[in-house]
Amino acid sequence: MNKNRLEAFSDGVIAIIITIMVLELKIPHGDNLQSLLNIAPKFISYIISFVYIAIYWNNHHHLLHTVKKVSGSILWANVHLLFWLSLIPFVTAWAGENNFSELPVATYTFILFMAAVAYFILSKTIINVHGEDSILSSAIGKDIKGIVSVIAYGISIPLSFFFKSASITIIVLIAILWLIPDRRIEKTINKNP
Amino acid sequence: MNKNRLEAFSDGVIAIIITIMVLELKIPHGDNLQSLLNIAPKFISYIISFVYIAIYWNNHHHLLHTVKKVSGSILWANVHLLFWLSLIPFVTAWAGENNFSELPVATYTFILFMAAVAYFILSKTIINVHGEDSILSSAIGKDIKGIVSVIAYGISIPLSFFFKSASITIIVLIAILWLIPDRRIEKTINKNP
Amino acid sequence: MNKNRLEAFSDGVIAIIITIMVLELKIPHGDNLQSLLNIAPKFISYIISFVYIAIYWNNHHHLLHTVKKVSGSILWANVHLLFWLSLIPFVTAWAGENNFSELPVATYTFILFMAAVAYFILSKTIINVHGEDSILSSAIGKDIKGIVSVIAYGISIPLSFFFKSASITIIVLIAILWLIPDRRIEKTINKNP
Amino acid sequence: MNKNRLEAFSDGVIAIIITIMVLELKIPHGDNLQSLLNIAPKFISYIISFVYIAIYWNNHHHLLHTVKKVSGSILWANVHLLFWLSLIPFVTAWAGENNFSELPVATYTFILFMAAVAYFILSKTIINVHGEDSILSSAIGKDIKGIVSVIAYGISIPLSFFFKSASITIIVLIAILWLIPDRRIEKTINKNP
Repeated sequence: MNKNRLEAFSDGVIAIIITIMVLELKIPHGDNLQSLLNIAPKFISYIISFVYIAIYWNNHHHLLHTVKKVSGSILWANVHLLFWLSLIPFVTAWAGENNFSELPVATYTFILFMAAVAYFILSKTIINVHGEDSILSSAIGKDIKGIVSVIAYGISIPLSFFFKSASITIIVLIAILWLIPDRRIEKTINKNP
Repeated sequence: MNKNRLEAFSDGVIAIIITIMVLELKIPHGDNLQSLLNIAPKFISYIISFVYIAIYWNNHHHLLHTVKKVSGSILWANVHLLFWLSLIPFVTAWAGENNFSELPVATYTFILFMAAVAYFILSKTIINVHGEDSILSSAIGKDIKGIVSVIAYGISIPLSFFFKSASITIIVLIAILWLIPDRRIEKTINKNP
Repeated sequence: MNKNRLEAFSDGVIAIIITIMVLELKIPHGDNLQSLLNIAPKFISYIISFVYIAIYWNNHHHLLHTVKKVSGSILWANVHLLFWLSLIPFVTAWAGENNFSELPVATYTFILFMAAVAYFILSKTIINVHGEDSILSSAIGKDIKGIVSVIAYGISIPLSFFFKSASITIIVLIAILWLIPDRRIEKTINKNP
Repeated sequence: MNKNRLEAFSDGVIAIIITIMVLELKIPHGDNLQSLLNIAPKFISYIISFVYIAIYWNNHHHLLHTVKKVSGSILWANVHLLFWLSLIPFVTAWAGENNFSELPVATYTFILFMAAVAYFILSKTIINVHGEDSILSSAIGKDIKGIVSVIAYGISIPLSFFFKSASITIIVLIAILWLIPDRRIEKTINKNP
């Protein structure tokens, strides 16, 4: 199994996910301002998901950059991540359609939670295959951001039913946290040419 | 005809198939738990198909890895395989929409049957072009898993009308069988550097 | 402008066209045999279009293989071809939906006609850029198949209104004609290493 | 972050955008000439958007060609551009569906305006990262076409509510302006081998 094809396939799937979301953004019924404003919740969920998928693409990149050999376990951990990401257009449309009501927001958060868990499993799998003293292992170290995200999403799921706005706020804050590129990996790679 | 472009095109088509399936996963009518539970069958068929397409991508990979020259016959045997795979989103949606009733399940199994036959034809075509004593030929040997799959799907098609659950169980078991990567090819390649 | 990126972009667009057609193949209303048979015309138009797009992918390949430098004129002649190919899912769905009635069949034939003209323009543009004595020029020579196709499609457009079956027969026959790979180009390339 | 993967991802997203637009081109209700003519506005907006996305693909190419190193800022400026381009299928369908009425045309123009601004930001970001005396910087110089486009779109947005036809004319004229490939960059690159 060639690393380049794993990257190309993942990039392809992520590119399709980020793009087909627009097909769920149904055009307004009418051509006046009110009909445009009616789809504002859908548009907001579209923006959040677009940013999230771009973040995953970016981080996935940095992660695979450190891979030297692709084992079956890495391949299936990667497919597992793509599975949860593939459901983002679905929950995006559902949350937007229902004006961010409780269950759709909780489901959206659940998908983000599972994607974060899948990302965590993928990075652990890569470390396992390459050994504890590999570049990636020292680069990631204690993956604070990853752990924080998983916990935050985990809290947000039940929170969605009681303090919906808090849950949405957490989702947006975690996105901002991840927008900052993962300099740890970059730095360690540069130190290990 | 360049092998890399055949791989890239196949990867592209498979990546699109696995991703656009989510567009058939229509969002629930409503935002309560019942409306979410109502689409459970669609979600289950989505998972099964996602795993199947990932398996095909993985095995297709191993198969093309052994190809040295791309003839017209390999190219069209490959298009033939992609044709049957391209119908998976259709039967996935149909089986999910109708709560796994008889005819949709039989049709789903028929598509899997034809895809397995097409995969078999592709591997035979590759062996024919490269000669009986090529790496692939010795690697595949008697393709037990492939033959078992084709027979199992063939039995499942009529079975769907009488013992639907048995048919679905067979589909899931074959998926698990294929989740185990094809070590025969990997081993033989490693012996022939 | 790099030839590889032109190939990759064209491959991407063609891979998406061939795959999203399945989204137009709406699932049957019901789960009995009659409801499946009702979509038979859509399925037949799906098969024809799938084969046509695969043919275009294959021939487009051979054509670009001969390209040494990508000029602006080649780039836009290529975009022009992709434009007509991008409309195939639309006419496929329309012809299938209306059980191959006159106007949809004529429109389908018109799109094939324009795609063939665009392919012809692209090959002429490539010859113009590379010179009359280039490999491609001697390989294509008098492009009999291309000219025959354009004329046959041109005749089929009005024919659709009077002898619909003849028009559909011509479309199928031309597809079979093109399924035979273009050995002229391959031969001449092999003679010019 | 590797430049090739940034290019491949952007190409993938743009290829998907240009192709899925056809899914918004709903097939006519009926098979007579009137039903085909009824979708003429949708078809016209389809053509305009197809040409615009092809132009962006082409220019994006020339722009990235000059990039030597991909920083986080370039990556996110690129994602920002893809975001606005991803909305083109949405506004294309909305403008076509409503026969180019005022608000949809204004929204369409607004998306083109934001895409042009995003392109401008991306080119400035690339210049910033590579230095004022880089190839790109001297190639672009005063980006007359880019500035003219941004201003023209900016004027067209309010204009859509009063002189709709003028606004559409401006959109078409700017497309024609960009169809002429950006020879400045090509020339400067050729002078700096």
